[in-house]
Amino acid sequence: MISASECLIFARNTALGLVAWFAIATAVQAQSDPLPSWNDTAPKKAIVTFVERVTKEGSPDFVPAPARIAVFDNDGTLWTEHPMYTQLVFALDRVKTMAKDHPEWKDKQPFKAVLEGDLKALAAAGEKGLVDLIMTTHAGMTDDQFATIVTEWLAKARDPRFKRPYTELVYQPMLELLAYLRANGFKTFIVSGGGIEFMRPWSESVYGVPPDQVVGSSIKTEFFMRDGVPVLLRLPQVNFVDDKAGKPVGINAHIGQRPIAAVGNSDGDLQMLQWTTLGASTPRFGMIIHHTDAEREYAYDRDTDFGRLDEALAIAPINGWTVVDMKSDWKEIFPHK
Amino acid sequence: MISASECLIFARNTALGLVAWFAIATAVQAQSDPLPSWNDTAPKKAIVTFVERVTKEGSPDFVPAPARIAVFDNDGTLWTEHPMYTQLVFALDRVKTMAKDHPEWKDKQPFKAVLEGDLKALAAAGEKGLVDLIMTTHAGMTDDQFATIVTEWLAKARDPRFKRPYTELVYQPMLELLAYLRANGFKTFIVSGGGIEFMRPWSESVYGVPPDQVVGSSIKTEFFMRDGVPVLLRLPQVNFVDDKAGKPVGINAHIGQRPIAAVGNSDGDLQMLQWTTLGASTPRFGMIIHHTDAEREYAYDRDTDFGRLDEALAIAPINGWTVVDMKSDWKEIFPHK
Repeated sequence: MISASECLIFARNTALGLVAWFAIATAVQAQSDPLPSWNDTAPKKAIVTFVERVTKEGSPDFVPAPARIAVFDNDGTLWTEHPMYTQLVFALDRVKTMAKDHPEWKDKQPFKAVLEGDLKALAAAGEKGLVDLIMTTHAGMTDDQFATIVTEWLAKARDPRFKRPYTELVYQPMLELLAYLRANGFKTFIVSGGGIEFMRPWSESVYGVPPDQVVGSSIKTEFFMRDGVPVLLRLPQVNFVDDKAGKPVGINAHIGQRPIAAVGNSDGDLQMLQWTTLGASTPRFGMIIHHTDAEREYAYDRDTDFGRLDEALAIAPINGWTVVDMKSDWKEIFPHK
Repeated sequence: MISASECLIFARNTALGLVAWFAIATAVQAQSDPLPSWNDTAPKKAIVTFVERVTKEGSPDFVPAPARIAVFDNDGTLWTEHPMYTQLVFALDRVKTMAKDHPEWKDKQPFKAVLEGDLKALAAAGEKGLVDLIMTTHAGMTDDQFATIVTEWLAKARDPRFKRPYTELVYQPMLELLAYLRANGFKTFIVSGGGIEFMRPWSESVYGVPPDQVVGSSIKTEFFMRDGVPVLLRLPQVNFVDDKAGKPVGINAHIGQRPIAAVGNSDGDLQMLQWTTLGASTPRFGMIIHHTDAEREYAYDRDTDFGRLDEALAIAPINGWTVVDMKSDWKEIFPHK
């Protein structure tokens, strides 16, 4: 038998034990490796060191949570951009789908080139040809209709090499980095040269990034009431190009403060990296994903039309930017094996 | 004496009691009135009914948290806009401060009118005069410099009638509504015709709305490197006017999904209310703040240049929008007595 006071002590200890169990469970979770797809090389150490510096209360490097803003390029940084930007694949597919209502396209560039699969003729149509393609395939419908078109296309389209949906060709190490930053009080944003409305229908389910934390290029839209129903119509006019020097402008417009961490993979991310990391009074983190793994993904930098990386790579050491060598720094590339 | 099994049961009950205590403490907190500055009239009931409908899991009206987007106009909805928009007071003050470096303004409109306090001549300068004023006072500096100018001005400026900083002339019932929505999983955004960079320096401390959840009118900015330091320069060119049919466009650009709740106070909010509430498949909430309290604040609707309310008020009943009569529906107006 047990005395009443012994029992009280036991009961108190049980209650305290419950509280302690919660505390231990939380601590264990925090200690397990948050970046298992990263090899234990310099980039992983740089990430963890930076996050620990800015989140340690009382430290001179501490950054309060509302200022923990991290920005990520999308094409080539969060998902594969070779052999062609996925949004361009989408536009070419749309031309083929829409062609039955446009018999005149058989003789009209750049549509003729797309329908005949003549990539040389398409390239010859230059930037004007590209803008024509984008406006034809991305405008003239409501924003809701466009989101549906994108969602339905992504559900069916398959990458020709990996035979998988494009939304599965996202980088596992980057998914872990996004989650690790968010677990440490960061707000994560996508800042992409790609179309803002092309990314939003799937950014939350794939990356955990809600639509209002996606920054990208856009066309103009117009609001009006049609038969008592509010409509936002997509117009065939460029509104904003979120690339190169446009990225800091887009960041300012949407986020309204300078990020403290930026990750990109091309010269299109150079100004975003400069804006994030240079001339600042608090610690900053800049990172470049260098595509070096032709076997598991692709190897390219200077000599490509999609994600050209030259100047940013050259000045990375001067600016203290971490360069990720995909081949040696990433244990896994994709979520699937 | 107590048997070991009795003691085990007691210990278990103590532990369960601890868990129950947390649950009760949370429930009690949830039951205390979240809107104490609202009288128990129709608007308060409409707010609570809507929030309970969309947050009740399993109900056909349930809206998942990521889609719980609420948008608020600022001038006249969250803070006082009479006798003149605060941002215009700021611009006029800036002209006076800058005048010592611009002797030519003594003979040049609209600056002459501002320096002489001649509001009639200022009004005669029309929209072009207003744009000139805004560009002169809001452009030509970096975004950091502008944020500092705004912050320093707000710290010193006092409203002539209430003798208080403008950031204290915010509506207590609206602060409670913002907090109540956030406590129920809503993300709250400001969608204002005012300047986005004029609101961001103080939106988080005053409203609990972070800079990236502020949508507003803007001028263009340009990014470049100056002596190794990244700079965003504010240019004297209009970028976007976030008013009337511009509000749904701004909402789409920044938020990327239709809100389920919108609050405004003028015809400038009409299209935002339409975009939020009409032709939707889930429950929506629209609310108009009607300024009816000349004694505690101001009384105006049709006959004013600042926050004119006519058409939106007329069609509110047809659209099921809740109209707040400030005089009878608000127990308190401001946070101070």
